[in-house]
Amino acid sequence: MSQPKHLTGDKAGIEEFLSRFDVFLFDCDGVLWSGDFLFPNVAETLEMLRSKGKQLVFVTNNSTKSRADYKKKFDKMGIPANTEEVFGSSYSAAVYIARILKLPGPKNKVFVLGETGIEQELDAEGVSYIGGTDPAFRRDIEPEDFTNLANGSALDPDVGIVLSGLDFHVNYLKLATAFQYLQRGAVFLATNTDSTLPMAHSLFPGAGSSGAGLVKAIGKEALSLGKPSQAMMDAVEGKFQFDRSRTCMVGDRLNTDIQFGIEGKLGGTLAVLTGVSKKEEFLAEGAPTVPMAYVDTLGDLLG
Amino acid sequence: MSQPKHLTGDKAGIEEFLSRFDVFLFDCDGVLWSGDFLFPNVAETLEMLRSKGKQLVFVTNNSTKSRADYKKKFDKMGIPANTEEVFGSSYSAAVYIARILKLPGPKNKVFVLGETGIEQELDAEGVSYIGGTDPAFRRDIEPEDFTNLANGSALDPDVGIVLSGLDFHVNYLKLATAFQYLQRGAVFLATNTDSTLPMAHSLFPGAGSSGAGLVKAIGKEALSLGKPSQAMMDAVEGKFQFDRSRTCMVGDRLNTDIQFGIEGKLGGTLAVLTGVSKKEEFLAEGAPTVPMAYVDTLGDLLG
Repeated sequence: MSQPKHLTGDKAGIEEFLSRFDVFLFDCDGVLWSGDFLFPNVAETLEMLRSKGKQLVFVTNNSTKSRADYKKKFDKMGIPANTEEVFGSSYSAAVYIARILKLPGPKNKVFVLGETGIEQELDAEGVSYIGGTDPAFRRDIEPEDFTNLANGSALDPDVGIVLSGLDFHVNYLKLATAFQYLQRGAVFLATNTDSTLPMAHSLFPGAGSSGAGLVKAIGKEALSLGKPSQAMMDAVEGKFQFDRSRTCMVGDRLNTDIQFGIEGKLGGTLAVLTGVSKKEEFLAEGAPTVPMAYVDTLGDLLG
Repeated sequence: MSQPKHLTGDKAGIEEFLSRFDVFLFDCDGVLWSGDFLFPNVAETLEMLRSKGKQLVFVTNNSTKSRADYKKKFDKMGIPANTEEVFGSSYSAAVYIARILKLPGPKNKVFVLGETGIEQELDAEGVSYIGGTDPAFRRDIEPEDFTNLANGSALDPDVGIVLSGLDFHVNYLKLATAFQYLQRGAVFLATNTDSTLPMAHSLFPGAGSSGAGLVKAIGKEALSLGKPSQAMMDAVEGKFQFDRSRTCMVGDRLNTDIQFGIEGKLGGTLAVLTGVSKKEEFLAEGAPTVPMAYVDTLGDLLG
């Protein structure tokens, strides 16, 4: 595989690169911002792309936020965007459950491990669920819980799916409950399986980390509805009807964003160095995942 | 490998099998009891072995209990045993940290993910620690925690080890804190890595499950001080000075107990069918881990 092109400072190279694509799929955390820190010239760069007639889609694995939450985040950050341009892993999971998996009722309820973003998107797709942010599950496990989970009296017989996402309120009671549903045959889904979450210029445990306990206990991986799973690409394409050869994925993580674009046979991939992956990882001999091009920061595309 | 011998109901077979060994290492959960349910004839079986002059050692991966806690459990269950016969994974970890790892001070403090059993054994070995059952860590993560963990102001500079065990009070704050220590180079240890915990005639997430989030986030396994890690076998042997060829490991889990005995080159291994592993798993063609013999329940050794 040829070396990726470094576009920072290369005005002609940038112009040529941008001309190849009509659609840009953007990762958000680590690309547009890190936590509440907006990277320089992001709004101007997106504006430049829009002015050239490019379609922008914000494809994010962050399952704690719904599309509506994300719109608020864009507003707060001063980045023009509309809700329809946002495609999050929670939405992807809700679409998968409601429109593709379509388990027959009544055993089609979801047990949610995660935050309100998942609940909002399930609501939007008319999927019923328990768990999630319900205060009844935000407590320590008690001795009687072991008995009632084991004999099933504390379980909802209608649960047929466990959906695991990033959960800032993970606890043993929720893990044990989800594990019981999985042992009883529930379908095991994950919004995404990112090992880490970039926050405050550092890394914190990601959705893959908060779901790893369940994976370990049940001994199998969840079907992921986030990057780099192509289930998510299919859903994005289904909604936006783009030409893959004229589409570019922009992201900071080789093993999620760039992998997602390569496996999806997109026309191009662009790495930014403001997030998780370092350029040494893709410039190294025999690197498993190599972007088509890279910039130090997204704002470098302004030239 | 030859088929394991089924000893249940085989009086002569049992006598011959027992005569080969001077020392029996017992797993506890799933062998002697399941949760608070004592399997039939356990006390009588252990008494029979003692009357034949056998040394008994209770080698348990349950890190939530100290040896003293385990002694209480034996008393409650009506099984004669003394504290010195108990060798738990928390004790194993404390011994490893204090006597083998011996990090130079002051950066040799332990951040504990787990219950009081770990703390008691660290205390017994004079190892200083934070985390564990400290109520300061039993709360939700707040926005300022991300900042203070990322910039290190919420971290203890003397922590050089993260020790992960079964934690019924696992939460995101503790995982994020441990992950920060690991990113700063702390040694990553686990009391044990059992995926599940047998309780109330069912399975619940085990120590390997509550620690899996950290493994996923940091991208490497912890060094385990529980079965089947031979670090634990070395510690047991160091204490009890037994002849491995005259020692038999008795357990319910192929991938921990039986593996532990086989890798430790013990004279024999005996599986019981009252716990996690089913006989179909070791009777199958090409089974990876096969015990020397098995009984349906431990009490079958009474003949």
